[in-house]
Amino acid sequence: MKTALQYHKEWQGKIETKLRADVSTKEALALAYTPGVAEACLAIEKDVEQSYKLTRRWNTVAVISDGTAVLGLGDIGPEASMPVMEGKAALFKAYGDVDAVPLCIRSKDVDEIVNTIALIAGSFGGVNLEDIAAPRCFEIEKKLKERCDIPIFHDDQHGTAIVTLAGILNALILVGKELDKVKIVISGAGASGAATAELLFNAGATDITMLNRSGIIQNTEKFEGLLGEIAPKTNKENRTGKYAEALENADIFIGLSAPNIITKEMIESMNKDAIVFAMANPTPEIMPDIAREGGARIVATGRSDFPNQINNLLAFPGIFRGAFDAGAKDITKPMHLAAAYAIAALVGTDLEENHIIPDATDKRVGKAVAEAVAKEWNKK
Amino acid sequence: MKTALQYHKEWQGKIETKLRADVSTKEALALAYTPGVAEACLAIEKDVEQSYKLTRRWNTVAVISDGTAVLGLGDIGPEASMPVMEGKAALFKAYGDVDAVPLCIRSKDVDEIVNTIALIAGSFGGVNLEDIAAPRCFEIEKKLKERCDIPIFHDDQHGTAIVTLAGILNALILVGKELDKVKIVISGAGASGAATAELLFNAGATDITMLNRSGIIQNTEKFEGLLGEIAPKTNKENRTGKYAEALENADIFIGLSAPNIITKEMIESMNKDAIVFAMANPTPEIMPDIAREGGARIVATGRSDFPNQINNLLAFPGIFRGAFDAGAKDITKPMHLAAAYAIAALVGTDLEENHIIPDATDKRVGKAVAEAVAKEWNKK
Repeated sequence: MKTALQYHKEWQGKIETKLRADVSTKEALALAYTPGVAEACLAIEKDVEQSYKLTRRWNTVAVISDGTAVLGLGDIGPEASMPVMEGKAALFKAYGDVDAVPLCIRSKDVDEIVNTIALIAGSFGGVNLEDIAAPRCFEIEKKLKERCDIPIFHDDQHGTAIVTLAGILNALILVGKELDKVKIVISGAGASGAATAELLFNAGATDITMLNRSGIIQNTEKFEGLLGEIAPKTNKENRTGKYAEALENADIFIGLSAPNIITKEMIESMNKDAIVFAMANPTPEIMPDIAREGGARIVATGRSDFPNQINNLLAFPGIFRGAFDAGAKDITKPMHLAAAYAIAALVGTDLEENHIIPDATDKRVGKAVAEAVAKEWNKK
Repeated sequence: MKTALQYHKEWQGKIETKLRADVSTKEALALAYTPGVAEACLAIEKDVEQSYKLTRRWNTVAVISDGTAVLGLGDIGPEASMPVMEGKAALFKAYGDVDAVPLCIRSKDVDEIVNTIALIAGSFGGVNLEDIAAPRCFEIEKKLKERCDIPIFHDDQHGTAIVTLAGILNALILVGKELDKVKIVISGAGASGAATAELLFNAGATDITMLNRSGIIQNTEKFEGLLGEIAPKTNKENRTGKYAEALENADIFIGLSAPNIITKEMIESMNKDAIVFAMANPTPEIMPDIAREGGARIVATGRSDFPNQINNLLAFPGIFRGAFDAGAKDITKPMHLAAAYAIAALVGTDLEENHIIPDATDKRVGKAVAEAVAKEWNKK
């Protein structure tokens, strides 16, 4: 069997250019290029919004990384992030019919990264940030949102948060609990952990305790970026300690952290009908069979070889498809929520413990998310 | 008949994304995306040159403008340049099988533009600069060549120079004159004028006189950028005055300037068998019929509706195709010359006064140019 590396050598790139305009004859050239193209240029000079009608901008997202937090591999450098960015671009096209331009940036300086992206933002209809280390990613996203008039979306934060929330909503239906009454523990306070906590609060959660490598985060601790905003709202009971102390009497565990840090005993200490999302990749915080032995009723992971895969692919293509269809200038928090509800709703009557979320390759998802996101923007 | 603007509204972008890798099933995703993609990432982390094997970098050029000198329209802004950049991207694919990413930059500051491009250069195999005003374009190109290890090519300079030289070489064959003995007059001392003078000198020309709006350029005048290097070598006879004074006893007129500035009488004052390249767009420096009435034996323009169209399309797709095929890290002056000779040679036995250059849409050209350019690089 061929390895993934061999496939990459054969593909020599996972996307390429396809023509939409004929340029094969002199007559065709005179329309698509000189002299005819000047008509389109002048129309955009007069009204820059025409760039969404007369070029591919309306359908084009830049997928941008600095290569500092690539998959679970860490800071491997900008060029080494490109296979992921290209893969993402392929997924944007296949699942959202969105054209994507993969880019890597040779800088780790927040302002330099922001400036670079802002200066080329006129080329795109939106920007999908990817695999940028926390806390830098929070500041980059925030500054870009201030400077750019196009949607900015950091998928590692918001994509993960949206799909996690979708799964949690369906899991709660199955166990008959309510989001505003459950105790939630989140392990991992990086980009995805902080954003997931934020979205859960926005969806109605009231009791979230977060952990980082040092243990339970205190609501008096100071942090940079999004975590700095979220931390004061967490840990209502002022718990101290590590995983064991956090999980006692919890209803939901959400792992966005490290392999094998949770034991069967810790799961046993959780409330009845525990929900365990162990999403560290490739090795989860606890393997599904052990979580079940410990009494977890619903288990999800990030992996495709177990049931209930929490995969960002369920969110980002539809989110940009919807934002582009609506001509949205931003991707707002209510749009994040709308996407999560749409993903959850799609499971419908198929909902059961080993099917709380649609399959990652379910082609209905992109369309449903797009419609929900566009509808939410159009409410404004 | 539909206008070019109507076509642009229908296309909504002249290029889109096409998939090279399957991402439709869970199994396919595991190879093209997580977890398999990590193998490609790690291979590039270990050896960044692998980015040319495992991603589309080997075949991808960025087509970049700041929107300051777009066609003959001038400084119309970055977004308004995009229809041209997209058109160019379509031509790169159609005529060179090169994948191109059109980008516009919201800055007019040399260092900011250079920094932006240099920081994203790891995403591409080369950069084609486009429609950037002189003298800024010279400094941007020079600084980028110093900072980047990928080919940098400013098409308005070098593409024009290459195709012009190709046409001149064939015209000289027809009139039986030699490049090192003819008097050449170039009207227009912007990006294309300066680069054309440089390439003609490199090809063996010895007698070039240049003009700008103020008249004949003196070899004691000081200029920025490439023109500053070229001007001291020009105007051997220390002529003064304007077009009439420059053209007296000249063999070749090359116009890269403004419409209708040359009269029949000026052409009459040129040497016998005069060669007139009147390439201002869309209205030439002198209309071909008037140039012929004045005694010009060979006339070329930039237009597709007259014979002998000097069109950059004959150069840039093949040049990048050749550079990419050879794994070239630069596009050198000898490669420019090789491209010009290859374009000229392709006319072969069809050479006659109204056919001194291949048709712009001649599909043989890209291949011939690519082979010549790659061969020249591989000599090193």
